[in-house]
Order: sequence, then C-alpha cells, then structure tokens
Amino acid sequence: MVKAIEWFNSKVAILDQTKLPFEITFVECTDYREIAECIRTMKIRGAPAIGIATAMGIALGAQNIRAENFERFVESLELIFIEMLSTRPTAVNIKWAVERIRSLLIKNRHESIDKIKELIIEEAKKIQEEDIEVNKAIGRWGAGFIKDGCKILTHCNAGSLATGGYGTATAPMFVAKEQGKSFDVFVDETRPLLQGARLTAWELSQKGIPVILITDSTAGTLIKMGEIDLVIVGTDRTASNGDVANKIGTYTLAVLCKEHEVPFYVAAPLSSIDFSISNGEEIPIEERDPEEVTHIFGKYQIAPDGIKVKNIAFDVTPNKFVTAIITEKGVFRPKHLKKLIDEKVNLEKYRLYPT
Amino acid sequence: MVKAIEWFNSKVAILDQTKLPFEITFVECTDYREIAECIRTMKIRGAPAIGIATAMGIALGAQNIRAENFERFVESLELIFIEMLSTRPTAVNIKWAVERIRSLLIKNRHESIDKIKELIIEEAKKIQEEDIEVNKAIGRWGAGFIKDGCKILTHCNAGSLATGGYGTATAPMFVAKEQGKSFDVFVDETRPLLQGARLTAWELSQKGIPVILITDSTAGTLIKMGEIDLVIVGTDRTASNGDVANKIGTYTLAVLCKEHEVPFYVAAPLSSIDFSISNGEEIPIEERDPEEVTHIFGKYQIAPDGIKVKNIAFDVTPNKFVTAIITEKGVFRPKHLKKLIDEKVNLEKYRLYPT
Repeated sequence: MVKAIEWFNSKVAILDQTKLPFEITFVECTDYREIAECIRTMKIRGAPAIGIATAMGIALGAQNIRAENFERFVESLELIFIEMLSTRPTAVNIKWAVERIRSLLIKNRHESIDKIKELIIEEAKKIQEEDIEVNKAIGRWGAGFIKDGCKILTHCNAGSLATGGYGTATAPMFVAKEQGKSFDVFVDETRPLLQGARLTAWELSQKGIPVILITDSTAGTLIKMGEIDLVIVGTDRTASNGDVANKIGTYTLAVLCKEHEVPFYVAAPLSSIDFSISNGEEIPIEERDPEEVTHIFGKYQIAPDGIKVKNIAFDVTPNKFVTAIITEKGVFRPKHLKKLIDEKVNLEKYRLYPT
Repeated sequence: MVKAIEWFNSKVAILDQTKLPFEITFVECTDYREIAECIRTMKIRGAPAIGIATAMGIALGAQNIRAENFERFVESLELIFIEMLSTRPTAVNIKWAVERIRSLLIKNRHESIDKIKELIIEEAKKIQEEDIEVNKAIGRWGAGFIKDGCKILTHCNAGSLATGGYGTATAPMFVAKEQGKSFDVFVDETRPLLQGARLTAWELSQKGIPVILITDSTAGTLIKMGEIDLVIVGTDRTASNGDVANKIGTYTLAVLCKEHEVPFYVAAPLSSIDFSISNGEEIPIEERDPEEVTHIFGKYQIAPDGIKVKNIAFDVTPNKFVTAIITEKGVFRPKHLKKLIDEKVNLEKYRLYPT
C-alpha cells in the first residue's frame, strides 16, 4: 500500500497527491514550512493525513530549534504550531495533533531538550501507527454494514491516501473485501480537485474492488433509481452533536439519502471529532482559490476569463441526516457521540450493529 | 446575440458549442447527415435548438431528393426523419420538429415537389423565428418571479445557445434585466460537458448579468445557507403530468429545493412538453460515452486508465418537486399542464402570478 507520508532519515517524504494517479512522485521535506506548504497546496490532504503531517512537521521543526531551556524551546515550537494551524481551517486533526504534542511537552518538561526532540519524533511516528490501527478498527466495526452484493456510494477520498494508511470510509470496504464479500463502489468524481476520480477510484481499483466512476450530479438519479444501498463518507471535523463537516457535496448526498431512505454513514476516527464544539455551525469552512474551479489541474481552462467563482471546500451535514458514525470504538448514532468521552458509560449499550 | 444555428444560402451554419467560450467557429452543413452528426457530438445542443436543427436538417436533405412523385419524395424523407430521430433520445423537440414537417407534407401533398421543398425551408426558418417569440413570452411570464436583489441558481445551459435565441430558463432573466432589476445568478458548472461554466456563464456575462460560477456540489450548501431565492432550469422533455427530464443534476437541485422550501421553476416551451406520455418514467434517458467523464474536452485525462464509468446524461424530476412550469402561455402548476391542450379551458383560471 502506497503511504501518503513517511518519516525517514530525519526527513519527511510526502506523496504528491496533486499528481496522482498519473505520476507517483514524493516531496522530500526537511523543514516544517515545506510541510505546511504541502498541506496548503493539498499535496497531502485528508483530515487524518494532515494530522500526521502536522505532527511530523512539528518534529522536523523541533530538530532545528536551538534553545538553552525548556521555556525557550516551547516558545519556538509555538511559532511552528501557529504556522501549522494556519494551513487549513476546517480539519480538526491539525489542532488535535498540536494538542497531542503539547501534552507530550508538559509530561516531559523535565527531560533534556535533546530527549524531548527525540520524543516528538517518536510521537509523530506513533500518531501514524495508531491511525492505521484506528482505521482497521473502523473497518472491523463498519464491515458488517456492507452486505454481499450491495452497492456503495462514496464521495471525495477518505482512503489510505487521506490517512496514515487503510483509510476511514474505505476501511469497512477493505475489511468486507477481506471477508470475501463482493460489492460495487460508485465513486463521485468530486469537483473541483477530483479526489474521487483521481484517488479513490485508483485506490479501490488497486485493491481489486469494482469501481464505477460518476460525476457528482449523477449520485441523485442513482439513489432515486434504487441503485445505491448505502453511502459511506469520511469527515474533516465532526462536532460533538454529530454534525459532520466534510468535502463539499457531502450535504447534498445526505439530503438525497434522507429523501430515499438510504443509510448515510460517516467514518470518523475520534481524532476527527471535535468534542470542544457543540454543533456544526462552529466549524470554520474554508474557501479556496477560484482557479481550482476555472482551471483543471491549474492548467486547463474551463470557464470564461475573469468569471467570479465561489469555491467552498466543505459543507456541514446536520446530524439528523446521519444514520450512524463509524468510529474505532464502534458504530453510534450521532446523538450518542458524546458517550465516547464519558468514562463512566458502558459504550456497549449504545453501539449499533448490522441487522 | 450569437445564434446557435442559422440558415443561409442553402446551407446551415452551426456554432460549434464544444469550442465555446474559447473559440467562435461555425460548422457549415450542406447535408442532413452533417447536421445529425453535429447533434450527436453536441456541437449544437439544447432541446429547442436541436428541434430547429432537425427541421433545418430535413430541409437540407429534402433539397437533394430526386423523386418523380409525392409518395417517393416522402419515402426518401422518412429515411431522413429516422436519421434525425436516432441522434439523441431524450429531447422531445426532435420528434416535435419531425411531426411538424409531416403535418406540412400532408397539408401540401398536392403541391409540386419543388414547391414542397421550398415550403420545408420556410417551415424550418419559421420554427426558429417562432422559438424566439416563444422564449420572449416565457421571459415575460417568468420575469415577475425574479425580484429585485434576488439570487437565482441555474443548471446547464438553457440559454440563447440552447434555443433559436433568447433561451428558455434565461429568458425571464433577460426580461427582468430589461425591466431594470438587479440580481445575481449562480451557475452550476454542469459536469461532464461543463455547459454551465462554458456557455451559461459566458452568455449571461455578455448581457451584463452578474454570474457566480460554482461546482455542481456547491449548490446544496448555498441553498442550505439561504443564498438561493429561486432555481430556474430548462427541460429536454416534460411529460403531461409535469415530470421534467433535464440535464443530469436537475433532480438533485429539486430535492434540495424541497428540503429548504426554495421555489423550483422549469422553463418549458410547449414544443418540449410531450403530451403523448403520461409521466416521466416513459422518457428514454440517454447514456453517453464514458470518455466525456474521464477526459475533459476529450483531451485531459482526470481518472485512471480503463476505469468503469456510468455517464447518464439526464434525470427525471417528479412533478411533486416542481413549483411551477413557465411556458409561453403562462406559468402553471405541473398538475395543470394538461389544460394547455384543452381548447375549452380558460387558461387564465390556472395561471400563477408572482405574489
């Protein structure tokens, strides 16, 4: 499995996803600013993957800090945190990765600076390893909802490339495939950056899962025709009430699913759930460069010169449209998401199982 | 105003819409087969425009027929009808144009062949002239529903280029503009062939109407945000119960409008209403070449080699999602569409007016 990001020899290799599936090239980063730039330009994208990239960026940046004491070291690190947090506003995993490094710092404040630098590298690698484990757990909980012979629809890319590996929305598909089930996956192309056409269609095909590529507008009629049994998407940030921010177009799918009583699942590792916000209205929504819409791959113009564009990168799907959220701890109704951070709760009482 | 099609000097000039807005080139047709090919390859598209192209194609073909009597002449013409009817299955205007020429033949069966050939040319030109008048009437009936300062959403291109001139969905916008109203039009880019980005955005801008281009997936979140006051689209074929076949993605917009109580209008000249069918399920839906999805402009590949694609060109919006249908005879609820062919009915009783 191709990895979106990897730490090796005190460097970070990022697979340039803007060139996929036509070229497999890596950007070698030696400075945290290069990683921030890769996140901004979406050479690496997907909430869990940019969480990992954030941690690795901090680890890279930390190595180059010359500080005589812990306080100075942390002061310098804070500038790196600010840079990473500024890259993309919607995904919560950047914030989550920064918080995780902050906790590590507090816990190890009495260690030497050199030791802490080592620990940050270890933590960044651990975040990636844990992410893969988390995704496999999402896959095991979610696979039961994929019946033999069914037809799934997904949007954008919440696959291996969007994560440390294995993917979130794709994990139940990979596990179901390993279980010997056969099923088709309709993949929305996902304009403007075509992550569905370029990344998801490619990833699933590589794993031998039958893919049918469609334009984003085609989903509606397929759902109406009864051609879709369930939808599974990922999330960039989910609020504690289960409102889901994800790639633009997700909300539209959710409304169509509601109209036609098709189950709508969101695969969400806990790292992408922002328990600090009560609902989706608090999630900042990124708007991006008009050129993403007017020029395919930044090169091929598809609209008149100078046309005004509104390029909203994400939308928020209110919890009432979400059938269930697939996490590494089980599958839950949106309204039960908060139980996940209540240590006194027996989660088993709230888990959903396939019927 | 640039015309999509024009008869001149015993030839037909078709503006090649696959090259717009980057090149303004015309295909000069001297044979009906060239016109059929222009329709198939969508150099000319839009239900009313391909109705006109059909009539002009028949007129061209008729000129080259050598027949000693009326029966032989009609036999040869029937082959041309078959060719034209085979070009695209969804739009009813092709059938409508063929029927109109058939009526003309029956009415003039006792004229000389040369005279009939002349009459067919006249009829084809008349179809275009009438279409422009019909569109202006649609504009006058529809403009009242466009309030000063409002925000409209449209999909695909139901503009001048899709018609003899003036457009169907765009006609109320042009009239409202002439009435001095100011309003914004959000234009869906309309994958796969990008008629919104290439044609509608260009046409409206040329007329000084402010356009904001969006990806098809962006409509949902804009409607949810309350940014859209009304939707106006065209139709390729509307059934007598008001079920509307139109460019893929139309149904999705209609569902979103219902969810958010946004009025959803369809501009439909009578030539695009198929009173011979009772509902939308009887409308044949065209599927087109996968390459339209995988290769932008047939050139720029956006998906992995050999990927399977489902490229459905149209969808059907059931009448319950349609607020009203704007025709040249007035604006009607879908359920009252049948009144339009009942000569005993006083249409005024059923017309809708803006509040």
